[in-house]
Parts: sequence; C-alpha cells; structure tokens
Amino acid sequence: MPGPKHLILADGAFGPMTSKTANCIIRYQPDQVVGVVDRDTAGRTAADVLGFGGAIPVVASMAEGLGLGPDTILIGIAPVGGRLPEEWRRWLLEAIDAGCDIWSGLHTFLADDPALAERARRRGTAIRDVRRPPPDLDVASGRARDLEPFVIQTVGTDCNVGKMTSQLQLTRVLNERGVRTRFVPTGQTGIFLEGWGIAVDAVVADFIAGAAERITLEGSVEADIVMVEGQGSINHPGYSGVTLGLLHGACPDALILCHEAGRRFIGEFRKDLRFPIPPLADYIRWYEALAAPVAPTRVIAIAMNTQGLDEEAARRACEAAEADTGLPAVDPIRFAIEPLVEAVLAARGRYLESRRTGSVGTR
Amino acid sequence: MPGPKHLILADGAFGPMTSKTANCIIRYQPDQVVGVVDRDTAGRTAADVLGFGGAIPVVASMAEGLGLGPDTILIGIAPVGGRLPEEWRRWLLEAIDAGCDIWSGLHTFLADDPALAERARRRGTAIRDVRRPPPDLDVASGRARDLEPFVIQTVGTDCNVGKMTSQLQLTRVLNERGVRTRFVPTGQTGIFLEGWGIAVDAVVADFIAGAAERITLEGSVEADIVMVEGQGSINHPGYSGVTLGLLHGACPDALILCHEAGRRFIGEFRKDLRFPIPPLADYIRWYEALAAPVAPTRVIAIAMNTQGLDEEAARRACEAAEADTGLPAVDPIRFAIEPLVEAVLAARGRYLESRRTGSVGTR
Repeated sequence: MPGPKHLILADGAFGPMTSKTANCIIRYQPDQVVGVVDRDTAGRTAADVLGFGGAIPVVASMAEGLGLGPDTILIGIAPVGGRLPEEWRRWLLEAIDAGCDIWSGLHTFLADDPALAERARRRGTAIRDVRRPPPDLDVASGRARDLEPFVIQTVGTDCNVGKMTSQLQLTRVLNERGVRTRFVPTGQTGIFLEGWGIAVDAVVADFIAGAAERITLEGSVEADIVMVEGQGSINHPGYSGVTLGLLHGACPDALILCHEAGRRFIGEFRKDLRFPIPPLADYIRWYEALAAPVAPTRVIAIAMNTQGLDEEAARRACEAAEADTGLPAVDPIRFAIEPLVEAVLAARGRYLESRRTGSVGTR
Repeated sequence: MPGPKHLILADGAFGPMTSKTANCIIRYQPDQVVGVVDRDTAGRTAADVLGFGGAIPVVASMAEGLGLGPDTILIGIAPVGGRLPEEWRRWLLEAIDAGCDIWSGLHTFLADDPALAERARRRGTAIRDVRRPPPDLDVASGRARDLEPFVIQTVGTDCNVGKMTSQLQLTRVLNERGVRTRFVPTGQTGIFLEGWGIAVDAVVADFIAGAAERITLEGSVEADIVMVEGQGSINHPGYSGVTLGLLHGACPDALILCHEAGRRFIGEFRKDLRFPIPPLADYIRWYEALAAPVAPTRVIAIAMNTQGLDEEAARRACEAAEADTGLPAVDPIRFAIEPLVEAVLAARGRYLESRRTGSVGTR
C-alpha cells in the first residue's frame, strides 16, 4: 500500500531553524513528501535548504505544488501573526478543489473556517486540525501506572532539545530488534508523523494529565515498550504545567533526560529575563521527586543534542554529562544510539523482574 | 451604592459538602444573596442547611426565587452529567425575562446556548461564563517576579483544603490593618466573589502560567500585598499541571501551605488507586525547589483546616504541624488568624529590606 503524498506548506519560513515540523516530516518520512511550497527558497531542493531530504523540490506556488501530485497538504509552520493569511486561504481552496486533504498544526482551527469547511464538504475531502483536543477528555486518575508494558517518557532541560527525535530513533532501533515499541505522540509534529495522538499543550488545563493518560493507554495495546513523547521542561516559566501534567498522566516506568550541550538558558524568552539551566543532577532530582507520589520512576540515561559543537567538544560534553550523573549519556543522532538502547533494555529487564517478584522500582 | 442581589441556583445539591461555590458566596457575601433555589431543602434557611448564612430562604422554584427580587442568577453547582438540564434552561429563560443577568461557573458555556443568548440579547441582560478564558492569552515570560508588591500564593497538600478561604480571611484582616491587600481569583468561586479573575484550570494548557502572570500583574496595581489564589496540588494525579503553571506564572515571594488535618489520601480518586499525602516537609521541599529556577520563594506558614476534628485534636494537629515544619501552623477559621498575619508581615518586612539592600530571598 503506498503511503500518503504530502505537499508541505512552509511559505516564508522554510529553513533549518524555522520550520521544525516540516523538517521532521522530511527527515523521517522523505518518501511521503512530494514537495514544499516556499517562495523564498523556491527552485532549490530540501537538501539544499536543510542539508537533508534529498531532491524534494521547493516550489513557488500552490499551483506548482499541486502539479507534483500530492493527496494531502501539511501546514507545519505558523504564519506571522497566528491568523490564516488570505493568500493561504486561497491556496488551500485550490488544494481542496484538486481533491487534497488538509492537515494543520495551527492554533487556529481550519475546520472552523466557513469557506474552507464548506468547500471541503462539497469536494468530499478532509480537514484535520491535529491540535484540536478530543471533546470528551477526563481528569486523570493515575491508572496508567498499572499498565503492563514498560513506559518510557523523555523529559528535558528545555523545549526543543531533541526529546521527540531521540524517542523516534529509539523506537525504530528497538522495533528492528524485535521489541514491539510504540511511539505515543503528544505534539503536532509527532501527530503528523504517526497519524494519531493528542497535542497536550492544546487541551484545557484540567485535562493535561487526562489526555496523557488516555494516549498512553491507547499506545500500550500490543506493545512491549511505550515511548510517550515528552514536552517542555519542569522549570520552564511558560510550559512547566504541561510537562508535569504529562508526567503524572503517563506514569512512566523510566525517564530519559534530554539536553542540548552548551545551552545555558531556557530558550525563547525575553532577553532581560534569562532563566539559567541548572546542572543535570538538579533535573534528575526534580523529575524523580515529583513523579514519585503518583508513580515512582527513574532517569535511566541522558540523550544529548550536540548540534552546536564540533566532534571533539561533543564527545567531551557527553563524557561530562556521564561523569555528572553516573548515567550513560550520548547524542543518539550524531554518535551511536547503542548506550541508550542498552539502558532501556536493562531497565525493562529490571522492571519485568520486579513485576514477577512483586517488588517495586526499576533500578 | 447597593451591591448585587444574587439568587443562587443550587437545585439538587444544596448542602454543607455538595455546593462549595454557593456556600462560599453565602459565607462571604450573605448581604448580597436574596435566596437559594433547591427543591430538596426548600422551606428551610441557609443557616438550617449549612450552619451559617442566617435567614436566607431556600425556595422550590425559579418563580418563587424571582419573587425575592434578585438582579443576578448565580450557578455555582454542576448539574449531574455536566450538561444544562432542560428544566434549568426554562428557569434561566424565566429569569432573563425578569431582567436578571446570569453568572455561570459551568464548564459548558451558557452564552453559547442559542436560546439563552438570543433571549438575553433581546431583553438586554448579560450572560457571564466566569470560566471562559480571555481570547488573547500569552505564554508566560516570568516577568511577575519583577513586581514591587509582595506576592503570596497558597499551595496545598490536595484540592479543597482551604486555600481560598485562608487567603480571603488574610486579605480582610490585612486590609483592616491598613495594608492594601488584593485577592487575585484563579477559580470560579473567587471570580464570583470578586467579580474578576481567570479560571486557570479552564485555559488552554500552554497558557496556564501566562494566565496566572496576567492576573497577578493586574492585581498588583495599588497593592502592598497580592494574594494569588492557589489551585490543586503539586502531587495531584489530575491537577498538578495547573498547580505548577500557576506557581511559575505568579512568581510568588512567599507561599502558605494549606492542609486538612487528618486527610490521608489525595481526594476524589478511584478507591483502588489511593495516593497517600506525604509529610508536610516533602511539600515544602517540592514547592520551594520547583519555584526556585523561575523565582525563588519560601513557605512561611501552614494554614490548617481542622474541620473534621474536635477542638483538642485540632490544637494537637496544629502543634504537630509546627513541630514538623518549624513554621507557624494554625486553623485561621477556627482559631486565631494572628500567627498567619504575623508571618506574612514579617516575611514582607524581610522582602522590603532585601529589595532596599538589593539582596535576594525573603527569609
């Protein structure tokens, strides 16, 4: 069965640092991407612009893009100002007329746009707002701690440090080794990749943990290991509530702490209010202490993101993290992922043994 | 200027343990309540049913209630099933016809009900859904830590332990002593009482801290002390995300830890999944540790809720909490509030001194 054929709308923002969602789709599912619409980089290829993605063409208009034969338009970047530009609305109407579905990660829901909704209804195509929460969420009950599969969650020292990427890589490798591993998406990019999930940052605050609980339970069916995608950071001034709710809803049996080597401050904040990133040991203590009253867990490894460093500095950063924490610490994209895989399998072994003997804890 | 005249709709749920919002309005603003609609207790008075509230009558129908001359209908209880019963809709239409405004704390927004909205528009009355978030919330930036007034937040060992009540009492006493103290409501009951605020549990998860930041800033105008209403608990399986986001958004200079003496488990959960309440010292450590990376703070006192104990046991529970934590611990409703007031004024003194000398910390 052939997969979907995506045309990615990234007009005005296609680039290594500006289109995270688009870039992840291109990195992980290049065979499902027929092209990218961006007037600024039109005429080049994904590889030219990003350094990966091969010959996927960048085109200057929706009409050109539709000529590449997509069946779905993916909107992974936010337009400036947050609202749907009139030009994008025209483009999306064109795409609907051509029979395409629309998948959107915007905060503004496209299915609520009367013009788009009416056109899609008449044409028989679908508009899927991946950040729209299910209508029937509940307050969490903590029952994910009873699950039989081994649940792993990533936690971070900040946003955008490699939580999803590390888990996608681990999921791939573990499945290759015959360990049935399921990635549970909690953000728009993961939902685009996997086709299901809940964007936990978009649910009503009372239901953060409830949403995490629901998708963790869904992801646990016929799985040996469940990889619940982490979000934010426990000390992030804006997003910490999402992080803690996710931790208490998913009740992970083990945590992988993700960190970008060299990053000194929580990102994307007012320059006059800088929030330093404390030592990794502080994060380990916080995450373990706060998880414990709902479901005890342990940090079992550090996934480093060393993208800003040369190879020698990257290796030294990983060694320093190992020395500071006593845990395996590697960059799973740049170096071997094996230490993370071994840490996961060893922790799962302890978990299965403790379930068998009725004792508690995974370490 | 006479205050509003509320008729409280609490049909089927008026009682000491079942109508928290209604009861708070009756406790704090009895002069503004003309009556309660509840068929189960009709014919009695608020004092008969609750033990306080004096001669406020309970009546059996909206028609009777409207005869008491209200200008606003307050809906403070949730109907079974969460949806608006057809009978309530008829009652509310009657009240609108009589010229009343509607204030609702329901999750389902009444202003979105076409029949009610149309009738209110034609009659020129207002429907106010107090849990509806403002449309333009932002992600928090941590800037509440720069505020000049002394910001106090309550934190709890669970939901429904007396956070709002303690702060309302403190606010009243401090204002009587000439310290300009402003209560900042973060939940529906506080919003009913004060007429402003944001229900932080009802905002989109990304904006919990942003909502807390906004109302803390609003509450800081012409105030010496800002009392930000706490919500939930840091180890609550369902609501911890709201609690932590509120803490990081409000950036309090001091915390008051609230606890119900004798409560052993986090409330309102599945009986097969009981979450023990750990020692108070654990909570103090967690709240202080998690606040620190955004804005350092200290727990300065314990507000005990001893409603389930006899007087001797209540005094012993307060003494035990003092011994365990080294902090003043009293039930501010049952016993003297003075130790809490002194703790607040002393902490504010240290805060003002540290601002004057440029040093950090409130202890």
